Amino acid sequence: MATKKVSATLKIPANVPSPEEDSEQLRKAFQGWGTNEGLIISILAHRNEEQRKLIRATYAAIHGEDLLKDLDKELSSDFERAVLLWTLDSAERDAFLVNEATKRLSSNNWVIMEIASTRSSIDLFNVKQAYQARFKRSIEEDVAYHTPGDIRKLLVPLVGTFRYEGDEVNTTLAKSEAKLLHEKIAEKAYNHDDLIRIVTTRSKAQLNATLNHYNNDFGNAIDKDLETNLDDEYLKLLKATIQCLTYPEKYFEELLRMAINKTGTDEWALTRVVTTRAEVDLQRIAEEYQRRNSIPLDRAIANDVSGDYKSMLLALLGHDD
Amino acid sequence: MATKKVSATLKIPANVPSPEEDSEQLRKAFQGWGTNEGLIISILAHRNEEQRKLIRATYAAIHGEDLLKDLDKELSSDFERAVLLWTLDSAERDAFLVNEATKRLSSNNWVIMEIASTRSSIDLFNVKQAYQARFKRSIEEDVAYHTPGDIRKLLVPLVGTFRYEGDEVNTTLAKSEAKLLHEKIAEKAYNHDDLIRIVTTRSKAQLNATLNHYNNDFGNAIDKDLETNLDDEYLKLLKATIQCLTYPEKYFEELLRMAINKTGTDEWALTRVVTTRAEVDLQRIAEEYQRRNSIPLDRAIANDVSGDYKSMLLALLGHDD
Repeated sequence: MATKKVSATLKIPANVPSPEEDSEQLRKAFQGWGTNEGLIISILAHRNEEQRKLIRATYAAIHGEDLLKDLDKELSSDFERAVLLWTLDSAERDAFLVNEATKRLSSNNWVIMEIASTRSSIDLFNVKQAYQARFKRSIEEDVAYHTPGDIRKLLVPLVGTFRYEGDEVNTTLAKSEAKLLHEKIAEKAYNHDDLIRIVTTRSKAQLNATLNHYNNDFGNAIDKDLETNLDDEYLKLLKATIQCLTYPEKYFEELLRMAINKTGTDEWALTRVVTTRAEVDLQRIAEEYQRRNSIPLDRAIANDVSGDYKSMLLALLGHDD
Repeated sequence: MATKKVSATLKIPANVPSPEEDSEQLRKAFQGWGTNEGLIISILAHRNEEQRKLIRATYAAIHGEDLLKDLDKELSSDFERAVLLWTLDSAERDAFLVNEATKRLSSNNWVIMEIASTRSSIDLFNVKQAYQARFKRSIEEDVAYHTPGDIRKLLVPLVGTFRYEGDEVNTTLAKSEAKLLHEKIAEKAYNHDDLIRIVTTRSKAQLNATLNHYNNDFGNAIDKDLETNLDDEYLKLLKATIQCLTYPEKYFEELLRMAINKTGTDEWALTRVVTTRAEVDLQRIAEEYQRRNSIPLDRAIANDVSGDYKSMLLALLGHDD
């Protein structure tokens, strides 16, 4: 197995077959009496974004069919969702997830927050373009239309801001905004305009400096001070936003822990984290998981799910088939 | 004079000199006892964005100096501002104008609103990138930090939204949002979340359909209903935002009329409109101006300003030198 991103778990074979070969093999996996799920996993779960894109284009050119539609026909339930999400490019996938999260029956403010807060600025911009191409509306109008009250007040600028990513920090500003945050939190004005402004518009480096001042100057980390009312959906989301912006591995570790420990497993969260992070930082998330739970992430997942779905997730976590 | 955008006023000679020749000529214009302003105008005011970019690059390569800095040294007052703004690319120019508008001494919410509302989505995105490259902060954080209260509530999503530009219209939605707008305006809840959401996030086509329903179903155009209190800065800005989004030529016509009719002329507004629209839609704006004021825009400007500044503006309006 060869080149991969430092923190990705995805494993790609040293000699990757041509997109034509992969397309032929996938077609074979769909033919005959049963579907060959193992073959599908052995191909798709070991190709990077660029390679999967080429396979989709080649498959359409050779077979005159959309690979995603064929996968949809052949597969089912959690395995299907994992394969489909994974096969999409990252921008299309995020656009799909956000759109789903704005619909009444699959409404999920956390997904919107997570995608807006953990993607790079240019990746988020690509999501916006993919969203418009697919849904013929802007991500901003759908998020604004489908979210209520304070949650909207937080999510709209979070999704809207093209955040600066340089590492310059204005220390004077960090001190004054730490003080401002502390005042608002002390007043329990968690939805205050300035608090939301700071969280949703400052660069991650600047926000980090501000939160360090907060911690140093007022004796508590901000997330402790926000833990006052854990039944408040807005407050939980605000706390998670800050975590996503400053310590995303920790956020994803907690999300996985809750998804796995739930009675019945939260497969949607599990699938989302594995498919969206396998090519990015799933290795770091797995390390965080091991540290906190004293069990490797892959083993925890293997204990909790089964079948082709399990094989797919473990393949994305870097297991050989 | 040859090719130009349908609605641009900029005139470019049929045979454009090479960037090397232009750079040499500009250098000559700066040398000797006086500056040759006429020569500067005859070159820069007759080159399009791409050509000016090449001239800047060539000038820097040949003379080891930044053309903008040399212009800054040689020119002064309104003429200088017009030449400098014009010489920048459109994205840099808008980034410069927004930044200036967020500063205390040159604070101007209208400039922010105008740029956020009248540029195409991708042009606004390019402004955001140019802003970050130059100022090492995001446009969103500066706008959010420097604007107060309801004005911030309007401007932040206006600047943030990557608006959809397709012409699909959802008629049911247009009807229901027209009703919602009418209710909020009847209640004088001009800063209501939903009113701001509709104005700042819907596509221009959708917003237009909504405002047509508003007009048909409730008997008044929305701008009439918003004219209740013309001393309210927020309300004036909201009304202008809607105009910029749905009828920008009219907005710019009014802006020019006020700039010209003022005792003492508002040169900043005049320069801004001419330099930012000359390559886009200044022709349409001039037609609007003529229709409303019964005097051609170029003549109105010529009556109101003088000297090199006048020559520069008229050149951008399409006069031969």
